[in-house]
Amino acid sequence: MSNHYDSAPSAYSYPLIIKQLLNRAKTVSTEQEIIYADKLRMTYADFFKRIAKLANVLESLNLDKGDVIAVMDWDSHRYLESYFAVPMSQYVIQTVNVRLSPDKVLYTLNHAKSKVLMVNSEFAPLVANYQFENSSIEHIIWLDDNGTSVEGVFGVNQARVLGEYESLLAAASDQFEFQDFDENTIASTFYTSGTTGDPKGVFFSHRQLVLHTLTEAASLGTLPDKQGVSLGDVYMPLTPMFHVHAWGFPFTATMMGLKQVYPGRYAPDSLLDLIKNEKVSITHCVPTILQMLLQAAQARGQKFDGLRMIIGGSRLTEGLAKAALAEDIEVYTGYGMSETAPLISLTAFSKTDPEMTEEEDISRRCMTGKPVMMVDAEIWNDSQDSLPHNGKETGELVLRAPWLTQSYFKNDDAGRELWAGGYMHTQDIAYMEADGTIKITDRLKDVIKSGGEWISSLEIETILSLHPSVDDVAVIGIRDAQWGERPLAAIVLKPGCQDTTADDIKAIAEQAVSRGMIPKYGVPSQFKFVDSLPKTSVGKHDKKVMCELYADQKGI
Amino acid sequence: MSNHYDSAPSAYSYPLIIKQLLNRAKTVSTEQEIIYADKLRMTYADFFKRIAKLANVLESLNLDKGDVIAVMDWDSHRYLESYFAVPMSQYVIQTVNVRLSPDKVLYTLNHAKSKVLMVNSEFAPLVANYQFENSSIEHIIWLDDNGTSVEGVFGVNQARVLGEYESLLAAASDQFEFQDFDENTIASTFYTSGTTGDPKGVFFSHRQLVLHTLTEAASLGTLPDKQGVSLGDVYMPLTPMFHVHAWGFPFTATMMGLKQVYPGRYAPDSLLDLIKNEKVSITHCVPTILQMLLQAAQARGQKFDGLRMIIGGSRLTEGLAKAALAEDIEVYTGYGMSETAPLISLTAFSKTDPEMTEEEDISRRCMTGKPVMMVDAEIWNDSQDSLPHNGKETGELVLRAPWLTQSYFKNDDAGRELWAGGYMHTQDIAYMEADGTIKITDRLKDVIKSGGEWISSLEIETILSLHPSVDDVAVIGIRDAQWGERPLAAIVLKPGCQDTTADDIKAIAEQAVSRGMIPKYGVPSQFKFVDSLPKTSVGKHDKKVMCELYADQKGI
Repeated sequence: MSNHYDSAPSAYSYPLIIKQLLNRAKTVSTEQEIIYADKLRMTYADFFKRIAKLANVLESLNLDKGDVIAVMDWDSHRYLESYFAVPMSQYVIQTVNVRLSPDKVLYTLNHAKSKVLMVNSEFAPLVANYQFENSSIEHIIWLDDNGTSVEGVFGVNQARVLGEYESLLAAASDQFEFQDFDENTIASTFYTSGTTGDPKGVFFSHRQLVLHTLTEAASLGTLPDKQGVSLGDVYMPLTPMFHVHAWGFPFTATMMGLKQVYPGRYAPDSLLDLIKNEKVSITHCVPTILQMLLQAAQARGQKFDGLRMIIGGSRLTEGLAKAALAEDIEVYTGYGMSETAPLISLTAFSKTDPEMTEEEDISRRCMTGKPVMMVDAEIWNDSQDSLPHNGKETGELVLRAPWLTQSYFKNDDAGRELWAGGYMHTQDIAYMEADGTIKITDRLKDVIKSGGEWISSLEIETILSLHPSVDDVAVIGIRDAQWGERPLAAIVLKPGCQDTTADDIKAIAEQAVSRGMIPKYGVPSQFKFVDSLPKTSVGKHDKKVMCELYADQKGI
Repeated sequence: MSNHYDSAPSAYSYPLIIKQLLNRAKTVSTEQEIIYADKLRMTYADFFKRIAKLANVLESLNLDKGDVIAVMDWDSHRYLESYFAVPMSQYVIQTVNVRLSPDKVLYTLNHAKSKVLMVNSEFAPLVANYQFENSSIEHIIWLDDNGTSVEGVFGVNQARVLGEYESLLAAASDQFEFQDFDENTIASTFYTSGTTGDPKGVFFSHRQLVLHTLTEAASLGTLPDKQGVSLGDVYMPLTPMFHVHAWGFPFTATMMGLKQVYPGRYAPDSLLDLIKNEKVSITHCVPTILQMLLQAAQARGQKFDGLRMIIGGSRLTEGLAKAALAEDIEVYTGYGMSETAPLISLTAFSKTDPEMTEEEDISRRCMTGKPVMMVDAEIWNDSQDSLPHNGKETGELVLRAPWLTQSYFKNDDAGRELWAGGYMHTQDIAYMEADGTIKITDRLKDVIKSGGEWISSLEIETILSLHPSVDDVAVIGIRDAQWGERPLAAIVLKPGCQDTTADDIKAIAEQAVSRGMIPKYGVPSQFKFVDSLPKTSVGKHDKKVMCELYADQKGI
């Protein structure tokens, strides 16, 4: 006999929607501050009103539920407000990667079928030549910090401009009744580039983001204070908010009711001022930003007072970790990717860690760490068998977690591949230690990560191969102290073309940049002319061998 | 146009079921220890095998999904294994409150229609006279630490005895494939007593328990280290595991992969030994247990080395808090109840708390604290209007959270009342400060909480009124240093019965105890003979006035 447990008719079944993340802050943190660089300070009480105002502005557009609202902005209070108001109004926020080439930015807007574009005046050039008449974008909201007028910027499409963000908010009511709805409603989308072909759209539901937020708070909260997050911390992102929800931290910090600082454009001196003056105590970034901060801080003799910094996006090197620790930055590693919302693993500190040497301590901070709660991580061989965690056997890291993208948007083939066998494929090759430490050794996908951004080897190869002197070309990633990895192009010239120089080849890459086909950072930093390229037994470029031949070590 | 975000066919949609709480521990904590008093030590790797073994034992009974398995045990490794294996096998675990009167214990078993009874030999007397032939219980599993034989214990029902727990596990396979299923499947049930009438059954789904666990880790994790929970902590419950999932901590500690200590019966000296020898660093209990520990520790000169202790169930008094802090126990308050799974609020420490006097610090540790993440707490007046949080306006504390019982089991009327207006009614009268601090001032329900257990005033009044000399009687709770509250009976004797003594009246209460009608702690500690009882304008007993008249202060 099975029992039936009936719910009371008016029992609240509590959907896991983003609005619920505000429950504690609404009661506990109304006087806490949210700061936008040197431009704006407000309390959470103001923030809640501004979310309501933004919701009213969006409602006036008569959009349909599920419509996409694209944001192109620096890390700002506006972005934070959009993180909440857009999905809480049952629209989808598209966080546009403004570092992509203009071609790809436009591709992602078109592909997502965004109806509203919230664009910072500084990014207007990226979309200036956008064919709005053929696009889904019906409304433009102008974001501006410099007094730049939107007049005439969009030419014949000027009528699509709804107005400037602050003016629109000022005119809107600060009351809005956010409804409950299905927690599986999609809340956010953005595009991941770097692998071959067009950028691929990932997407996350309210439920997924709520579960990511709770688990992030639990995972970072249960680290010892020196490394973890606690009530009383001050948060500032140093990973752009268009990058995988800035590691989900804006949601987590808001749920916790922390003081938050949004820095705008990442200029080293103003970042250092904010860290110092606002007492920022926790942040996250790619190694390139850390390096930039260290250099700037050294120049002015600023220390970091135990600032906790989670490094993701590219591998933290031992040298950089050591330099950061010397400046009193508690630096360690988080691992994740666009498809994973992103948190998957963290360096696992414990109050009962055994004594370790400085070298051992630094080494573990640079590893991929251990899976966080709820994450089911396995290492699979080619036959999808789970391999033992013995620190030796190597295979693909595959995942289950409550917050993984369930496919790629309108790309079923890639989605099927992503989820082959019921686990999400990271395309990272790894082994695991008996204590759950993941060690990534290689990448399945042929991509290069420079300053936290993906570069597709194939795409650069295709462009370079258009040069009339090029017979064969391969682009590989080589370890770079500043950017993590940088592309190196290995080129075989056609017979009789031996006069062709690196600058000749580079010119065609720069031409592709100026045409918006590839981003600036896609231009290889090194060109190496060789007689032939190493091949695998089946005749493919053997990039593993190339990495050994052409660089001291491959960047991972 | 709304977009459609299709999932890949083999994408894993990740139900929030209890099995997922093990994901991290299975990878990271296989060598970590779980300890049962001085009787057993095992690793998590053993624990996972034993869960599989228990699942195999249960599977051999050919139960239906949703069948109830009742557990009557001290806090043990067996209980922990049942917390996981029972719901993970799609059965419902009933955690039986063994402190209730035998009548009520049997009532709860019957009402829940338990099919399996896992009973510790020390509790066998409670169910010895149970009419198994008329009951739902088909199988009995014998739990024993003392070599007590089950032979003959159950008389004609001996055939229902499946065997002794450890022997059954020893014979079972340690492989079991736990399936996925609907996260809204009910996982646990137990009964709350104290208000008038029969005990009421609350119930919680897998989803609710997973969300409670994540939020508990996030809420306690983000407290500063001195008060919160971190990786490396050692957990021991001091709230019985039949009481609201021991505050959910066994789930939380397991998810985190902490070292765990289960103490068995709460004997002061063995508890102190375990705390010292196993380096227990976090626990939770009612004030009565804290007081018992302090006394025992004083006798042997043991200090507590920063042991964090969350007090719930009854109000922590300033005097007790001060005494605990003096012995180096980091003591503070958690608030919740059977209906709330239970976590609702915690004393909120922050790294940036302003300097405060010892008195202020102690005072906040004794308050109900601030709502934890995800909890939507309001103060309602009688018209269900939400009152402002101004530290003044008083009403009923009502709640929404992802883990509140959705009704009472087979008691729709009480369930409707619980959820009147779409918020869960705590029956606690409170106000809130502007910073979210909840201050409970009174209780709507006429109950007394003694040593963490509810006593129904009405029930005791009914029994005392059966004495032939009693004309009128009222039972109220008065503050008690050891038990939190104790019942006081105010009695008006009939004319000509003035010779009746307190002992005469007490005898009838003790008679009710011996007949299993009320628990021992239901016998009033004080009997007060009065000429008349104060009444309200509508002629009801005015218990507020009585509390002022008969005691220095009413216990809350």
